Amino acid sequence: SVTLFGVVDAGISSYSNKSDNTTLFPLGLPPLGYVDSIKVKRTVLSNSGYNSSRIGFRGTEDLGGGLAASFWLEAPISNDDGQQGIATFARRSTVSLSGGFGEIRLGRDYTPTFWNDTVFDPFGTNGVGTNLISTANTSFGAWAGGATTSVPGFTNVTGSNYVRASNTVGYFLPPNLGGFYGQVMYGFHERDKYDPGTVTPTALNTQRTGRYVGGRFGYANGPLDVAASYGQSTVGDNFFAGTTTKVKTFNLGASYDFGVVKLFGEYSKAKNEVDNEAIFFTPTADVDLKGYLVGVTVPVGPGLIRASYSHVKYDLNTPFISPFVTTADPKANKFAIGYVHNLSKRTALYATVARVRNKNGANLTLGGPSFVTGFGGQTFTPKTSTGYDFGIRHAF
Amino acid sequence: SVTLFGVVDAGISSYSNKSDNTTLFPLGLPPLGYVDSIKVKRTVLSNSGYNSSRIGFRGTEDLGGGLAASFWLEAPISNDDGQQGIATFARRSTVSLSGGFGEIRLGRDYTPTFWNDTVFDPFGTNGVGTNLISTANTSFGAWAGGATTSVPGFTNVTGSNYVRASNTVGYFLPPNLGGFYGQVMYGFHERDKYDPGTVTPTALNTQRTGRYVGGRFGYANGPLDVAASYGQSTVGDNFFAGTTTKVKTFNLGASYDFGVVKLFGEYSKAKNEVDNEAIFFTPTADVDLKGYLVGVTVPVGPGLIRASYSHVKYDLNTPFISPFVTTADPKANKFAIGYVHNLSKRTALYATVARVRNKNGANLTLGGPSFVTGFGGQTFTPKTSTGYDFGIRHAF
Amino acid sequence: SVTLFGVVDAGISSYSNKSDNTTLFPLGLPPLGYVDSIKVKRTVLSNSGYNSSRIGFRGTEDLGGGLAASFWLEAPISNDDGQQGIATFARRSTVSLSGGFGEIRLGRDYTPTFWNDTVFDPFGTNGVGTNLISTANTSFGAWAGGATTSVPGFTNVTGSNYVRASNTVGYFLPPNLGGFYGQVMYGFHERDKYDPGTVTPTALNTQRTGRYVGGRFGYANGPLDVAASYGQSTVGDNFFAGTTTKVKTFNLGASYDFGVVKLFGEYSKAKNEVDNEAIFFTPTADVDLKGYLVGVTVPVGPGLIRASYSHVKYDLNTPFISPFVTTADPKANKFAIGYVHNLSKRTALYATVARVRNKNGANLTLGGPSFVTGFGGQTFTPKTSTGYDFGIRHAF
Repeated sequence: SVTLFGVVDAGISSYSNKSDNTTLFPLGLPPLGYVDSIKVKRTVLSNSGYNSSRIGFRGTEDLGGGLAASFWLEAPISNDDGQQGIATFARRSTVSLSGGFGEIRLGRDYTPTFWNDTVFDPFGTNGVGTNLISTANTSFGAWAGGATTSVPGFTNVTGSNYVRASNTVGYFLPPNLGGFYGQVMYGFHERDKYDPGTVTPTALNTQRTGRYVGGRFGYANGPLDVAASYGQSTVGDNFFAGTTTKVKTFNLGASYDFGVVKLFGEYSKAKNEVDNEAIFFTPTADVDLKGYLVGVTVPVGPGLIRASYSHVKYDLNTPFISPFVTTADPKANKFAIGYVHNLSKRTALYATVARVRNKNGANLTLGGPSFVTGFGGQTFTPKTSTGYDFGIRHAF
Repeated sequence: SVTLFGVVDAGISSYSNKSDNTTLFPLGLPPLGYVDSIKVKRTVLSNSGYNSSRIGFRGTEDLGGGLAASFWLEAPISNDDGQQGIATFARRSTVSLSGGFGEIRLGRDYTPTFWNDTVFDPFGTNGVGTNLISTANTSFGAWAGGATTSVPGFTNVTGSNYVRASNTVGYFLPPNLGGFYGQVMYGFHERDKYDPGTVTPTALNTQRTGRYVGGRFGYANGPLDVAASYGQSTVGDNFFAGTTTKVKTFNLGASYDFGVVKLFGEYSKAKNEVDNEAIFFTPTADVDLKGYLVGVTVPVGPGLIRASYSHVKYDLNTPFISPFVTTADPKANKFAIGYVHNLSKRTALYATVARVRNKNGANLTLGGPSFVTGFGGQTFTPKTSTGYDFGIRHAF
Repeated sequence: SVTLFGVVDAGISSYSNKSDNTTLFPLGLPPLGYVDSIKVKRTVLSNSGYNSSRIGFRGTEDLGGGLAASFWLEAPISNDDGQQGIATFARRSTVSLSGGFGEIRLGRDYTPTFWNDTVFDPFGTNGVGTNLISTANTSFGAWAGGATTSVPGFTNVTGSNYVRASNTVGYFLPPNLGGFYGQVMYGFHERDKYDPGTVTPTALNTQRTGRYVGGRFGYANGPLDVAASYGQSTVGDNFFAGTTTKVKTFNLGASYDFGVVKLFGEYSKAKNEVDNEAIFFTPTADVDLKGYLVGVTVPVGPGLIRASYSHVKYDLNTPFISPFVTTADPKANKFAIGYVHNLSKRTALYATVARVRNKNGANLTLGGPSFVTGFGGQTFTPKTSTGYDFGIRHAF
């Protein structure tokens, strides 16, 4: 009654991240030892270039009367170096009760808001081709937030509960609604509450940080699939100042399968915002993150060509100061193209190449080392990130 | 030949722990900002409210001639947040050889002394209903002891080898003794011994700490089950002072199943004691911990009502100083009641409520945050701990 | 399609490691509190005395046309204390594509150079009987190297990639070559490369450390098996000094099965060497490590007697200074004998005793605590290490 399943995906990946010298020199004269740009490269044996490497256990029990109980425990693994076995069930760890009413699910699971980023990405947010909206959102909680219930050693989980959330209660609509589907999720922050409130410790991020609330609703019928989601993740709080920092995310995605070609599109808007309950307070600027993606897949015999273009733009909502101070909004775009060759349903070879271009201080890579931003007293601004994956995915 | 088994148990739990202001104010006048009592609450998605969440692998090989070899590897998992996968086999990790003579078992296993605390508890030492004897014993090794071979990240294991012990050799009587059963266990401390002894390093707790010796014997026949156990766990030593600190535990439990109702009872006595081999020494006071439990379960169709009352009392053996110094013995009691609704043999819904009352400085909770013991220069004494579990247990 | 397999091996082991007082006293008079020698002993419940305790998942998929995809995920476990479950797949973590051309294997795997040390050791580099060549090589990378991609908490993996390497690409010859077999392996260092090179950070061991290159070729036919291997492991580098430290290993092993007795032999030579690309540099002395082993196994009914003698010698290549300064080369030898009693193919009882003798500062044990090298201002030199294993191995 238990199914053991998994994916072992390994490949050779290479990343080259280039930043340009943007130092302003007095008199415009570059000094001795001037370097025009710096490239930092890394070539590795990687995992999860096409599908995330994992191992899991799942099962369902028929309870009669349409009721069923089920569980799903799924661990991320790093099969390239063997360092991460089944140390956590950080990919998913749930127990469910389902029936005609739908499904109640308890534990750690994907957030509703993440689904559109991955389902409507031809590259499924894996490897160098990953949707740039996802790349930008992964680090977005860090703009003003603090650490929450992240899982140690599992880099795919950030403090903003972007991809998954722990300690959640979820509800899913039943599958028989004529193509309509939907889910809502609440994630406990598991923080202490003091009574009287005046004895609350003054430590930051100890009152509500870690909470997640969100939902997703969609329609899938024939070649069409379309879905919208909205969620709020509490990434910081200051009890005595009366402030709560939230990442609020809305996105909308769709795909249409014409047979010879399948089209993908997504629009996403996130806001990192401080809610104030105090009467008098110092206003803080929200940070906006908008993005869109267009993508395509083309079946070619046993293979699949995949391509996407994605774009993101941050709006720092910085007031105009003077024409000499840059307040241009950071933005970046990405182009990715790849080919998957299926040797069987379970085993495939794949290759992907991609390139990210950053502007106005945006700092997004497709993998590998961080951009170099300083050397010898000179400053460098992130520009391009280029890379490839070439590997094999085997599922069991 | 390998059986994969497990339990995924998740629920919503809430804890509210209240302490009272016991500051003695000059002239009896409470200051500005006086707080009568402080409550600290936490609501969480919990695991193991009814049965401990786990995943394991076990198997038996028939060797012929009545002999058999078997293994059992069982990991605790935290399915509410996915943080703990199969990182350890801290619940049980053994290899056995068994036959007409009984069973020899090597590895990490439950201590004989723990069994009575859990077997004769209607709540099986899980969730907010847990036997108060077990709660008190979990932290009892810390009264005078040091850390031993605890398993990192596994909170159910303390330095006193209370629930389980590592590096053990166990022997079990064969099952065909007319209802009599029994076991003995020895756990290696795995410390270094120096020859000559004079070169032993002066570091504390490096010579014998971690050793466990114990046994349990019982009789189970028809509706009756009764068992007694005794064990010693070395929780501290000081080689050059010639002292060894041990927790010595005796307990006796019984249950009788009348069909319409099943009764449970347990008596436990533990002593945290310093053995002295030196001729001249400063006497140290032992700490005693006595407790009893009475419980009942009542089958109701596919469900089971469970209730228990447990009581513990510490005897600090403090000498009488003056009528103005409190030397009253800390004590606590607990009442728990709950209902389990079986949807199948493997799947159940459950709910439990419970309340612990502490007196004279006893400091026991049924879960959640620690009691607040100080605020704004005022002192607070632990009083009540109240909580509930409401969840689902699915076994596979 | 997934095979779950494993070994649970537990036993009682004891180690006694003795060092002699080699202090030079003024006038030759030992002081008050003089100790002739110090023995440090430890008795433990051990794992892996006969075969390494493990749990693993593996499978193969037939892709048609002679092609196959397969995976192998194998975790080391510490079943004596339950502390290490399936936290890593540090024993092996690979995905392969194989066919008439041979096999391409990606991930973490044994190095080609380790195989001869274990295959031609009657004790299979497990327990107190372990090949002394292996014991010496385990710590050999530390003579002049730094930490590389070692796996935390997995003591069998050193910085020198001696037993296994992560992030590797391997190629194996197909099995139908009339007894000839062979493999080559390349392990990525996964370090960053800077362009221009002048911006490379000055941190040590960040440029090439961790890389492994090696191969092994052999011939197995009827009673004969013979193989040679060569490999290089980069254990340190200094980019700006232009130096790279490598452990270069060559070994040759053979076994011949006469039926009533099987003979084993191995010769090994390793060099810890600094390669210099700079024109002017301070020469550094290489360290050589040479060793040989002769062994025998004798089947006795359902049992097997095993014995081996192994010898290693370090050549520090120290220049002659004066007759008063010791420059003698450290060396050590070991004798081990044991018996394995098979209760079935999967279950065996075993016992091994062994003794290592060190000379001229060699510092090798067969397990347990380190030699004491100083006490009360006196210095001690490692001499003998004696120990035994007595246990049970159960495979599933």
